Amino acid sequence: MPQAVPSLGKDLLGLEGLTREQITGILDTAEAFKEISERPVKKVPVLRNKTIVNAFFENSTRTRISFEFAEKRLAADTVNISSTGSSVAKGETLVDTARNLEAMRIDMVVIRHGASGSAQFLADRIASSVINAGDGKHEHPTQGLLDLLTIRDHRGPLDGLHVCICGDVLHSRVARSNIHGLRKMGAQVAVCGPATLLPAQVAEMGVTVFRRIEEAIEWADVLNILRLQLERMTGGFIPSLREYNRVFGVTRARVEAAPRDILILHPGPMNRGVEIDSDVADGPHSVILQQVTNGVAVRMAVLYLLSGGQPEQAEAAKTGGAA
Amino acid sequence: MPQAVPSLGKDLLGLEGLTREQITGILDTAEAFKEISERPVKKVPVLRNKTIVNAFFENSTRTRISFEFAEKRLAADTVNISSTGSSVAKGETLVDTARNLEAMRIDMVVIRHGASGSAQFLADRIASSVINAGDGKHEHPTQGLLDLLTIRDHRGPLDGLHVCICGDVLHSRVARSNIHGLRKMGAQVAVCGPATLLPAQVAEMGVTVFRRIEEAIEWADVLNILRLQLERMTGGFIPSLREYNRVFGVTRARVEAAPRDILILHPGPMNRGVEIDSDVADGPHSVILQQVTNGVAVRMAVLYLLSGGQPEQAEAAKTGGAA
Amino acid sequence: MPQAVPSLGKDLLGLEGLTREQITGILDTAEAFKEISERPVKKVPVLRNKTIVNAFFENSTRTRISFEFAEKRLAADTVNISSTGSSVAKGETLVDTARNLEAMRIDMVVIRHGASGSAQFLADRIASSVINAGDGKHEHPTQGLLDLLTIRDHRGPLDGLHVCICGDVLHSRVARSNIHGLRKMGAQVAVCGPATLLPAQVAEMGVTVFRRIEEAIEWADVLNILRLQLERMTGGFIPSLREYNRVFGVTRARVEAAPRDILILHPGPMNRGVEIDSDVADGPHSVILQQVTNGVAVRMAVLYLLSGGQPEQAEAAKTGGAA
Repeated sequence: MPQAVPSLGKDLLGLEGLTREQITGILDTAEAFKEISERPVKKVPVLRNKTIVNAFFENSTRTRISFEFAEKRLAADTVNISSTGSSVAKGETLVDTARNLEAMRIDMVVIRHGASGSAQFLADRIASSVINAGDGKHEHPTQGLLDLLTIRDHRGPLDGLHVCICGDVLHSRVARSNIHGLRKMGAQVAVCGPATLLPAQVAEMGVTVFRRIEEAIEWADVLNILRLQLERMTGGFIPSLREYNRVFGVTRARVEAAPRDILILHPGPMNRGVEIDSDVADGPHSVILQQVTNGVAVRMAVLYLLSGGQPEQAEAAKTGGAA
Repeated sequence: MPQAVPSLGKDLLGLEGLTREQITGILDTAEAFKEISERPVKKVPVLRNKTIVNAFFENSTRTRISFEFAEKRLAADTVNISSTGSSVAKGETLVDTARNLEAMRIDMVVIRHGASGSAQFLADRIASSVINAGDGKHEHPTQGLLDLLTIRDHRGPLDGLHVCICGDVLHSRVARSNIHGLRKMGAQVAVCGPATLLPAQVAEMGVTVFRRIEEAIEWADVLNILRLQLERMTGGFIPSLREYNRVFGVTRARVEAAPRDILILHPGPMNRGVEIDSDVADGPHSVILQQVTNGVAVRMAVLYLLSGGQPEQAEAAKTGGAA
Repeated sequence: MPQAVPSLGKDLLGLEGLTREQITGILDTAEAFKEISERPVKKVPVLRNKTIVNAFFENSTRTRISFEFAEKRLAADTVNISSTGSSVAKGETLVDTARNLEAMRIDMVVIRHGASGSAQFLADRIASSVINAGDGKHEHPTQGLLDLLTIRDHRGPLDGLHVCICGDVLHSRVARSNIHGLRKMGAQVAVCGPATLLPAQVAEMGVTVFRRIEEAIEWADVLNILRLQLERMTGGFIPSLREYNRVFGVTRARVEAAPRDILILHPGPMNRGVEIDSDVADGPHSVILQQVTNGVAVRMAVLYLLSGGQPEQAEAAKTGGAA
């Protein structure tokens, strides 16, 4: 049963700014919404007549769809903006776009944008709630939250759990949201990848560094394997994909050599045969599709809480839903 | 009054796999939905709280809009994916995209894709219903069904009717769905077009071949005139458009020379002045716009039947619709 | 209290074709919808089960979103078309696209298109209502209406008011709709800009011409500052942006030198530092964001009236709205 919890405030910009209690509150609310997100026999119309703009200035399928279905499940009115076809193509500044949305009395903006800090920038300038759906290399908090929920589903409380984030940590907002969220929840966090793909300040984040995937697997209860973001690796060291797989790929042989029943996460989209082999992605340790399923419940929870809902009322809101 | 009929099963992938009874069941259900699709005074909320993804990886206007309005008329929650702006741009495989949709508990996926067999591929891998909205050169079953319904509206039972499919049969999924559907319903089917635009195995499909449009018109009760798919004719023999029109174009003079009151269909979009003249497209024999109108009813029927509805209950579902 | 008014007829194509009474009727209806557009606590379901296609063949953010939220507030079923991803990419003519929409029993089409006259062209050929959301350099009537409403909100009746339209009048459909609308409402209208950006026939439109922005500001009660449409200025005289700002830019110093409490409008998106300085855009004279807010109410009013609603019933329709 979820408990009263400090309000999230107006926005969800990252997990760095949340307390352990707030994160727990979101996860518990998501738990309450799981049933309705997985078998939607009715709406939970807590956002009826609320207006939401999904502003995706970068490509996305699963995150946008996950948000859209979460919003529809809560009976909100939604409109989409993408980078193609918007005034951004006419050179309008982000803040002018935002002020226009605010002037139309939009209640919430879900934003994905290539610039780190863009969600914060927006949130500082408009009265509408802003939800960060990924800003540059900064944070992707709902992804972090659904990862936490999926781990908690399988391993119980996160305290003391060993979680290793593997791969392209440098370019990854998912890594940053995971590191912040996991550490707040009491987990031990490590990263593993080629030195060129780890941020210089990683040691200062209170995170262990493994250079060899075998060591990481020996240590970890959970691997969260990041996508090699080939499209971002301009001007840097671009590893050969085959070489990357040979040295850092999470293969069946490596997973089977693990001393524990290791849990495998991946935020998707996967490069099968590069950072993860199909055997592992589709194998018994993988909870990758459950992450996707949990994503809808987590986003329902965040939308619900930011619109003023209370965690302890989520169960009741469900029951009161229209047929 | 529609009758009980063998279930369509989980998916609608093509007309090749359906029986005459199943096709009749869909057409009869569409008949029952016609009134509500043509004068939508209320919803028929048989898909309320069902979630549908319209995944159009190829350009489309009429098919996508027709599906969207059919879905909204049945009160479903819908989300769109297009090739631009999706994870497909990040190189995600179709099956990973599909599994993600399934993990979000999507009830149905309507897919248009450039690869023949993609709808089947998807349907084999996910529990959600898959509706083929056109896969490469393979099939476009809802187009075939709406063509059958339109012919039936005007000429009654299809048994023994002479239907000639004209033009670019080689590249046409519409042709294939028509050939399969028409033959199952007992029609006599012919094709007419330049040898380069007819598939090599056409004779094996139980289909008559006409080389001259004049002969086809003399034989036929119905002409279904395909679009010359200029954008697909790379690397082959590309006819001069003027020459094509002179030899194979369906012109007023040719239609007026027909021994019967011939019925003219075209799946659109038309190349006016190429495969069909405006005189004919907009003339008294044309039922081209009625095809479009019937498309909404046919898609409502398919969505309804795949979600578990029974043909004989379609009338009752209509009456029970919310205001 | 709005009064009975001559019907708008089937379409809204421009303000040139409307009477003063019709414009007043729209503004009064928008006034009645303001409360619900600004604090949407409920729907006004006057368009329930009506189907609307938003066909935006040119980029837009605010206009499309404003229409979409207006439509959703009135409970319509809506579908979007953009230029990318539509059959237009297959070379289909606008009229065939339109006839297809009509055949699907679409009630209304909101169209933005690069060709002047395209909205009229469409309206002449289909039974569905057509709303012009901007056609080439011709008209953008809902923008004109929201400008009129915003001016009326702040300065009362428009009779005798001095309104100067500044900048790129030549390329501006907003300018044309404003000139027609303002003159019908009894305002005195002027334009100000470089000779190369004023249409040759401007004097014949009953409009005063100022060559210097200082003179315009001395004369005007209201400035409506147009966007310098850089993307349209191919092949003509392209002014240096810095030079343009120096000579024609609406700066704080110029606004403060005005003899009256001048009202500042801009249809957006703004080129800050070019035609308008940020000091002015965000300053005390600016009603730019209120224009955006009024846009939703104006579009609700137009949708409502074209669907057969009466201005004097708008208040009652609001009260009868579903929760």
